[in-house]
Amino acid sequence: MHGKDVSSEFIRISEITRLLGEHARDLSQPYKTLIGDDAAVINFQDLKLNLFASDMMVENIHFRTSYFKAADIGYKLMATNVSDMAAMGGFPCYATISLGCPRNFDMQGFYQGVKRACEEYEFHIAGGDLSSSELTVVSVAMVGSTHGKPIMRSTAHIGDYIFVTGPLGGSSAGLELLLQDPEATGPLVEKHKNPKARLQEAKAISQVEATSMIDVSDGLLADLNHICENSHLGAHLEKIPVADGALISNALYGGEDYELIFSHPDPVQVASIFASADLAEPVLIGRFNDGGTITVEGKEVEIRGFVHRF
Amino acid sequence: MHGKDVSSEFIRISEITRLLGEHARDLSQPYKTLIGDDAAVINFQDLKLNLFASDMMVENIHFRTSYFKAADIGYKLMATNVSDMAAMGGFPCYATISLGCPRNFDMQGFYQGVKRACEEYEFHIAGGDLSSSELTVVSVAMVGSTHGKPIMRSTAHIGDYIFVTGPLGGSSAGLELLLQDPEATGPLVEKHKNPKARLQEAKAISQVEATSMIDVSDGLLADLNHICENSHLGAHLEKIPVADGALISNALYGGEDYELIFSHPDPVQVASIFASADLAEPVLIGRFNDGGTITVEGKEVEIRGFVHRF
Repeated sequence: MHGKDVSSEFIRISEITRLLGEHARDLSQPYKTLIGDDAAVINFQDLKLNLFASDMMVENIHFRTSYFKAADIGYKLMATNVSDMAAMGGFPCYATISLGCPRNFDMQGFYQGVKRACEEYEFHIAGGDLSSSELTVVSVAMVGSTHGKPIMRSTAHIGDYIFVTGPLGGSSAGLELLLQDPEATGPLVEKHKNPKARLQEAKAISQVEATSMIDVSDGLLADLNHICENSHLGAHLEKIPVADGALISNALYGGEDYELIFSHPDPVQVASIFASADLAEPVLIGRFNDGGTITVEGKEVEIRGFVHRF
Repeated sequence: MHGKDVSSEFIRISEITRLLGEHARDLSQPYKTLIGDDAAVINFQDLKLNLFASDMMVENIHFRTSYFKAADIGYKLMATNVSDMAAMGGFPCYATISLGCPRNFDMQGFYQGVKRACEEYEFHIAGGDLSSSELTVVSVAMVGSTHGKPIMRSTAHIGDYIFVTGPLGGSSAGLELLLQDPEATGPLVEKHKNPKARLQEAKAISQVEATSMIDVSDGLLADLNHICENSHLGAHLEKIPVADGALISNALYGGEDYELIFSHPDPVQVASIFASADLAEPVLIGRFNDGGTITVEGKEVEIRGFVHRF
């Protein structure tokens, strides 16, 4: 387990730091580090970091290298964690990345995907860990801030309207295409490979003081059910927006769309805030009630979605 | 990739939360969550979180299940990250854990090891991620605070004395024993399986305003070399403290002891602070100079230690 020199790993880290450019730069004056000490020093006197989340992606479970390039893995890993910040009514500030990978892994491509996410979502890499591993496994931790009060899963009320920020099912339909043909392309495949975290929408939703929020990572019904369980409510849904080319089953049960589900008592106020932020109006899909179930067009549905089995 | 129910993973998460007990409790009033929302809400008005680090441990690279129990993995993963907080002159506050593991992994044992570290080092679990994986891979991210100014690798001065908080080489000697016999026991094996993060020492070192610090994760020479490179200095060493039963080569090149290496211009002041904190006096092992090399008893040494090869 003990090697004969310390150069390889540290050369890699310095290459990564160079590749990330300003996204790994020193923002922590007067302490001159982000990357390269035991821990990153991230305190700003004027910035309160109050969100903290982590995610892991494992080869053959979350992705196959037959259809995922390293750059896609890097981008998607970051986007899913940014989506966790969005789902709290917040935005990302810093991330650490732990990467375990075999020798032939395209590390440069991976960090280019990471960098693209840094640019798009405006956060910085504060450090991480690099390890050899037989299977590729990537893990990210992120700290962020909220625009206002954090928006929880546990605070929805009876009668609140339920909204979703965009059509659903695209990512799982894209995955089905990739499993049939690893070379498949098109908008559904793009939705699976390069999901977008809804940061602008999260800001508008925070401004309108939504009563609850979650992002669609496990599937509409599975994720909505988290709000129901945590808020002790039921829900009835109508008119689910389905992504072009996807099926209603994709929209109900498919995961990884990263659209935001949120609730609010006043649809007019929601529409107005989204319009003034120049964002597409969210789709009103239903309403919370005091039942213990979720119904779609009047019929009770089975709650299922993506699950890791143990 | 999409399962038929969402129960298994969430039952596991609720079991984990119950097992962690007060170490996963809600400390974030007025927001009622730590575990179980998209991100943990960790803001305290009176607590400035300014350290952020992450670490990953991969099966067959960092450990083998032939000699590491799940509880050892859980404990060691946390202790190594706590050591990163210590090495900045700080202490841990919250961690997220991402665990990828096969179906037969002893998850309960793992989180019992985590809990033991939470109790010993006084921090809380703020969330994480759970995934199936062919190989066991664990990743932790931690946020913490410093007692005073963060202690960096880049701020040592010429003439500063170099100290280490305890004897070295025990962990790598213990690993050698385990590789020969997975059933091996004894203090060296314990040092490898259950390393101690030096939090009390870190506090004393922070009070005495050390000029630089790092923890021994890759080996004395490799880690001291990080300070030398970052501070643009050389060092000469004498009188390395070797753990009972270990060799001088273990002490120089062996990793994972998690003792602290730090520097200070005044040995008397260092001894006095450690004495008043009722801690064993750190060992003075050498002094920084303006050379570009590290010498041990006058001879220049090769810088090597544990390295992941890519």
